[in-house]
Amino acid sequence: MTHHKPALRVGMIGYAFMGAAHSQAWRTAPRFFDLPLDPVMSVVCGRDTDRVAAAAEQLGWASSSTSWEEVVAREDIDLVDVCTPGNTHAEIAIAALRAGKHVLCEKPLANTVEEAEEMAAAAEEAARGGTRAMVGFTYRRVPAIGLARRMIAEGRIGEIRHVRAQYLQDWLVDPEAPLSWRLDKKLAGSGALGDIGAHVVDLTQHLVGDTIAEVTGTLSTFVTERPIAASSSGLSASAGTERGPVTVDDATAFLARFEGGYLGVYEATRFATGRKNSIRIEINGTRGSLAFDFEDMNVLEFHDGSIPDCEAGFRRIIVTEADHPWVSAWWPPGHGLGYEHGFTHQVVDLTRAIAAGEQPAPSFADGLQVQRVLAAVEASAEHRRWEAVAG
Amino acid sequence: MTHHKPALRVGMIGYAFMGAAHSQAWRTAPRFFDLPLDPVMSVVCGRDTDRVAAAAEQLGWASSSTSWEEVVAREDIDLVDVCTPGNTHAEIAIAALRAGKHVLCEKPLANTVEEAEEMAAAAEEAARGGTRAMVGFTYRRVPAIGLARRMIAEGRIGEIRHVRAQYLQDWLVDPEAPLSWRLDKKLAGSGALGDIGAHVVDLTQHLVGDTIAEVTGTLSTFVTERPIAASSSGLSASAGTERGPVTVDDATAFLARFEGGYLGVYEATRFATGRKNSIRIEINGTRGSLAFDFEDMNVLEFHDGSIPDCEAGFRRIIVTEADHPWVSAWWPPGHGLGYEHGFTHQVVDLTRAIAAGEQPAPSFADGLQVQRVLAAVEASAEHRRWEAVAG
Amino acid sequence: MTHHKPALRVGMIGYAFMGAAHSQAWRTAPRFFDLPLDPVMSVVCGRDTDRVAAAAEQLGWASSSTSWEEVVAREDIDLVDVCTPGNTHAEIAIAALRAGKHVLCEKPLANTVEEAEEMAAAAEEAARGGTRAMVGFTYRRVPAIGLARRMIAEGRIGEIRHVRAQYLQDWLVDPEAPLSWRLDKKLAGSGALGDIGAHVVDLTQHLVGDTIAEVTGTLSTFVTERPIAASSSGLSASAGTERGPVTVDDATAFLARFEGGYLGVYEATRFATGRKNSIRIEINGTRGSLAFDFEDMNVLEFHDGSIPDCEAGFRRIIVTEADHPWVSAWWPPGHGLGYEHGFTHQVVDLTRAIAAGEQPAPSFADGLQVQRVLAAVEASAEHRRWEAVAG
Amino acid sequence: MTHHKPALRVGMIGYAFMGAAHSQAWRTAPRFFDLPLDPVMSVVCGRDTDRVAAAAEQLGWASSSTSWEEVVAREDIDLVDVCTPGNTHAEIAIAALRAGKHVLCEKPLANTVEEAEEMAAAAEEAARGGTRAMVGFTYRRVPAIGLARRMIAEGRIGEIRHVRAQYLQDWLVDPEAPLSWRLDKKLAGSGALGDIGAHVVDLTQHLVGDTIAEVTGTLSTFVTERPIAASSSGLSASAGTERGPVTVDDATAFLARFEGGYLGVYEATRFATGRKNSIRIEINGTRGSLAFDFEDMNVLEFHDGSIPDCEAGFRRIIVTEADHPWVSAWWPPGHGLGYEHGFTHQVVDLTRAIAAGEQPAPSFADGLQVQRVLAAVEASAEHRRWEAVAG
Repeated sequence: MTHHKPALRVGMIGYAFMGAAHSQAWRTAPRFFDLPLDPVMSVVCGRDTDRVAAAAEQLGWASSSTSWEEVVAREDIDLVDVCTPGNTHAEIAIAALRAGKHVLCEKPLANTVEEAEEMAAAAEEAARGGTRAMVGFTYRRVPAIGLARRMIAEGRIGEIRHVRAQYLQDWLVDPEAPLSWRLDKKLAGSGALGDIGAHVVDLTQHLVGDTIAEVTGTLSTFVTERPIAASSSGLSASAGTERGPVTVDDATAFLARFEGGYLGVYEATRFATGRKNSIRIEINGTRGSLAFDFEDMNVLEFHDGSIPDCEAGFRRIIVTEADHPWVSAWWPPGHGLGYEHGFTHQVVDLTRAIAAGEQPAPSFADGLQVQRVLAAVEASAEHRRWEAVAG
Repeated sequence: MTHHKPALRVGMIGYAFMGAAHSQAWRTAPRFFDLPLDPVMSVVCGRDTDRVAAAAEQLGWASSSTSWEEVVAREDIDLVDVCTPGNTHAEIAIAALRAGKHVLCEKPLANTVEEAEEMAAAAEEAARGGTRAMVGFTYRRVPAIGLARRMIAEGRIGEIRHVRAQYLQDWLVDPEAPLSWRLDKKLAGSGALGDIGAHVVDLTQHLVGDTIAEVTGTLSTFVTERPIAASSSGLSASAGTERGPVTVDDATAFLARFEGGYLGVYEATRFATGRKNSIRIEINGTRGSLAFDFEDMNVLEFHDGSIPDCEAGFRRIIVTEADHPWVSAWWPPGHGLGYEHGFTHQVVDLTRAIAAGEQPAPSFADGLQVQRVLAAVEASAEHRRWEAVAG
Repeated sequence: MTHHKPALRVGMIGYAFMGAAHSQAWRTAPRFFDLPLDPVMSVVCGRDTDRVAAAAEQLGWASSSTSWEEVVAREDIDLVDVCTPGNTHAEIAIAALRAGKHVLCEKPLANTVEEAEEMAAAAEEAARGGTRAMVGFTYRRVPAIGLARRMIAEGRIGEIRHVRAQYLQDWLVDPEAPLSWRLDKKLAGSGALGDIGAHVVDLTQHLVGDTIAEVTGTLSTFVTERPIAASSSGLSASAGTERGPVTVDDATAFLARFEGGYLGVYEATRFATGRKNSIRIEINGTRGSLAFDFEDMNVLEFHDGSIPDCEAGFRRIIVTEADHPWVSAWWPPGHGLGYEHGFTHQVVDLTRAIAAGEQPAPSFADGLQVQRVLAAVEASAEHRRWEAVAG
Repeated sequence: MTHHKPALRVGMIGYAFMGAAHSQAWRTAPRFFDLPLDPVMSVVCGRDTDRVAAAAEQLGWASSSTSWEEVVAREDIDLVDVCTPGNTHAEIAIAALRAGKHVLCEKPLANTVEEAEEMAAAAEEAARGGTRAMVGFTYRRVPAIGLARRMIAEGRIGEIRHVRAQYLQDWLVDPEAPLSWRLDKKLAGSGALGDIGAHVVDLTQHLVGDTIAEVTGTLSTFVTERPIAASSSGLSASAGTERGPVTVDDATAFLARFEGGYLGVYEATRFATGRKNSIRIEINGTRGSLAFDFEDMNVLEFHDGSIPDCEAGFRRIIVTEADHPWVSAWWPPGHGLGYEHGFTHQVVDLTRAIAAGEQPAPSFADGLQVQRVLAAVEASAEHRRWEAVAG
């Protein structure tokens, strides 16, 4: 970051949970990494004038706007960062790409395969003109995941035999937990499947460098009606006593066959009492195994099959060494990173790809492919049989 | 154990791995538990005269025999303990029951549902005359499992939402590992599914007190040919260079719907590099969760959902307290038990049930039901759709 | 943070490891916490003009200076943040306090008890005029530590019986690791004792709310000569072959008796191969126990002695719930924090104390008291007997 | 075990907790190990005629006796196994050795250094005639400990830098726990120091193959009076309301300097709430580290310092492989052993040493040396300074 670096002027649409994480990333990245462009937090966009202005103040954006169309159209914006719910991704991202803005879009890419296809097509078209698009599967950039991918690519666990992945949360266990937009199929697209299942599909495919060919799965909705959340304006006295239908899945599980022939077993749920944000992945290969749990996010477990039995065992690698991915920018060994660092790594890699004229990963095409896996799971749950993933 | 107790004279058929474990159980049980009958290790039976005589000597049986028919017919035998491969279970167990001997039969109950049905029928018939039959799903009697079952029955985790179970081994990862009888469908019935998958099906059904209604699954054989093991007599110079077909599964995974409506996810494999005998079970309920891993067999993890969030967490219960199942017979708190203790608890409970004139669990009917689940998994793998478990 | 908040204009002295951590804290705190003052990163100070200017650019300070005296004297600076080596702390901090600047000073407070006493006296004097001083024992503000302190204060573990603490690193295991300033008693004051031992002394006293009355300990220097590090200017061709003496301790261990009569056992070392930054604390009380390991910094283990034995066990509390200290400002449950967050919490609490006209903790008096414990350890190591901590 | 093997006829003195463990060992050893002698459980000895007869019946001894002198004198006894409290060890063991009986004596060897010296002298004298004596530090024969010792001897962790060991129990936390003989200095000799501290002194010296040269330590008695246990005959109505003095230590901690110059840190307590039988040992060397916790007794953690940082980490070796010490006699990989197996390994090694005419380890001289370390800790606690271990 020097005064002579070109700026990368960012407009962010949405400012809730993801907006806070993305803001911290844009602010932090140039302080720890040597970036080719200088990110500028230009404008944040939301629907309510006062609230978006307060968010700009709180999160550190230079200005605020209530019109994403205006932000997308602004001459002085280079990149649009889409942090809104999934049902709005396609419209905003496509408009931004057509306006020549680079796009970082939160996952899932879209709520439907059709929208995702349009987005991927728009991204492909935009790429011809040097405009870049990336989908925010941020867990790819946890250092332990980056290390695991590198080790698999280097052959450290040999040929893959098994992939197993679970994403376990518990915030819906209470049947009186309110009906939020995330439980409304129209807004959220799907439930555990699209919200968190998407992450483990992306992560595992990314790790093994292969895609899922077919799946068979099931969806469960354990609690079919929930209290309607009291409106935030507090006007409705009856709020809290009315109930509405849950139209998405609470949990999903599916088996997957990868193109490479090996087996994947997946589970995603919001009903695993006591598991807050447990992303567990284990991959067994002919020469070794790797295991990860986000509850201990700075650790990667590795079994090296070439070590004699009498000394072999899963090794707890604390992924804080200078030669671990992204780590040299941070602290000395043993000083762990947190959840938000993945977002910082994400904008670092995106910024570098933009400057280098390269495609950042995961691309919208990658996001579309994940969407197709999720769609195949839904179809298999309906038809009660294996379904091929469209390609 | 006093001189005035009636004897329970045992004849054991087979003397390999399981035979050693059962012998230790019969020898140890009366030393630590107050039994109503006095087990007597009367006779061990095998095919080779010299080897079975040596086994009797080594394992501590009073005599040896090369004819199981003879053992079954002996007046001075009260119980036949069947430790042979699965393809012989039906014939021996049924004959023993008809001869009025109690039977303890190793799992899986049989290699086919048909045989298992005959065995269950024979057991039911025998029970009318007070003759008892039990199948050896020994992991039920690991204290941590016993405690988990008790806690679930007491409602400590509420209504079940999720069951997940994995049985992971790695002894076939090497493609040059030899073709043993366990890889021959004719002798073994199936591979990972019946050998170790059977255990987690039984364990999870036992824990939740419910049965699996339907399944969809898949079977994988990663290495389809293996070297034929050199004969133990050493006569065949060519042995080791010839290869034969693997006719069973190396790994299986399946989804299950329980009668109670909740979801089970299962996996059993002999290809999980670095996992030696890892039986992992996690059960999530509306009021709590339980987790177990046989690699740390004296521990049960429990999340109590009624504890306020700020102090809640999975609790590592070391299952060595006097009020834990079977534990008061053993050592002070913190002094763990091992693999073989489950076998001791098994013969303790069997002996007590016989003396009390009660049905020991798991019964042959339970063993048959597990067999039907396995058969449904095989059918679903063939038909690529969900299959109901026959009832 | 609003435009109407008064500013807190910060001048930071030093910009190495600690300078980077403090910069991130000042930058991040107002984005996640509602602060009464608005921190302004005004000036960073170092000895080399070009390097400090580059640091200002990289770390995000508005200006740079090569004179700490000038920074301390500036009218437009409200707080001086001292991130230099320990031998310079006293001079800078005292000057700043006398100039009416609030001071945040890195630990250890000073290299000698005498200097620390002067600093504490200066802080006491300054406090009368509303000028505040705080020493940077940042690990106090890891949420798991904050939670542990709260639980102990609430009586959750009853009366304390045992305190044990280890701070284990391994960066000096290699005898060819170079002779840095940290191994020079003149600059660093002491080795493992003052650098990392100080942290566990402060942490444990903070946790139990009591001070150490007497100690007996030992110091070890395993490698007494090391290669002199090549000069960074690269002029000296011979550098790297010359060796110089290590004048500080590589490791220390000591027993401690608290004022409350219970026992503490401490160890701090740079020779624990494989332990990178392992701070382990366990405290046993009459009603429960707490255990912490910085290698898993988002977790606090708690044994509640009031739970019946059959369900009791150490509970793994993931300290990411909204009602855990400092956590509500961050992410949803299960999304862990990292090393640097403690620094952010530190400036949050300092800023709030300044605005409220209250004494922030730990005070310079607290830092002095830790220094006296370390001095007593050194005296006991020399005299080979217990030594009282001066009071 | 064949009929042609010479017998090893055992007389066991005492039949409580240790008696049960020893009985199981004598019964089990010949069933799993190929022993040169055939152990015969000839006679068990106790003070009460009826109770010792019942114990013989329960534990499987051929006969019982109320006179240890008679047992020691019997022609048909080859080995005397001493399982009584420490104050009786010297008299019984010395008499047995003088009568030409091999002796296995429970730890601690004696309650005083003087007695231990007499026992060591008697053992040395007896050894000249081929009569063997061994002290029962059974934890040496946990396979993970055996593996650790082998790895250290092979240089796998290089030169030792640090030894740290804790033995944590919690059975005295409750101030109303009754005053047992273990809290009476006349019978027990000392408290946590001799009962459990002795184990970690022996274990660590055994592991590193070196002895402690000097120590400085402290002893604590937190609860100085306890209720006198109601008599088991139930005659005394007042029992339970009277209180008596605790004359031994509840906890101890000490620093140790080994002959090799490195540091040891030790702690033993009966007041670590929630720790049932936690024996934790960590040894750091220049090339690696080893860590053990008896709460997970089948695991040894190993950090191999020669592995590049990016893949290095503590490796969880499950010590159930055929080439791990004593393991090949037992079960397949991943099938763990329990507390009692160490006792079986102990009689296996003792039996083999007797048959081979070799000195079994640990010898009475080893037991005496441990006693001298404990005596030095007591002296240092009294004199509040370092004390050399007598040699």
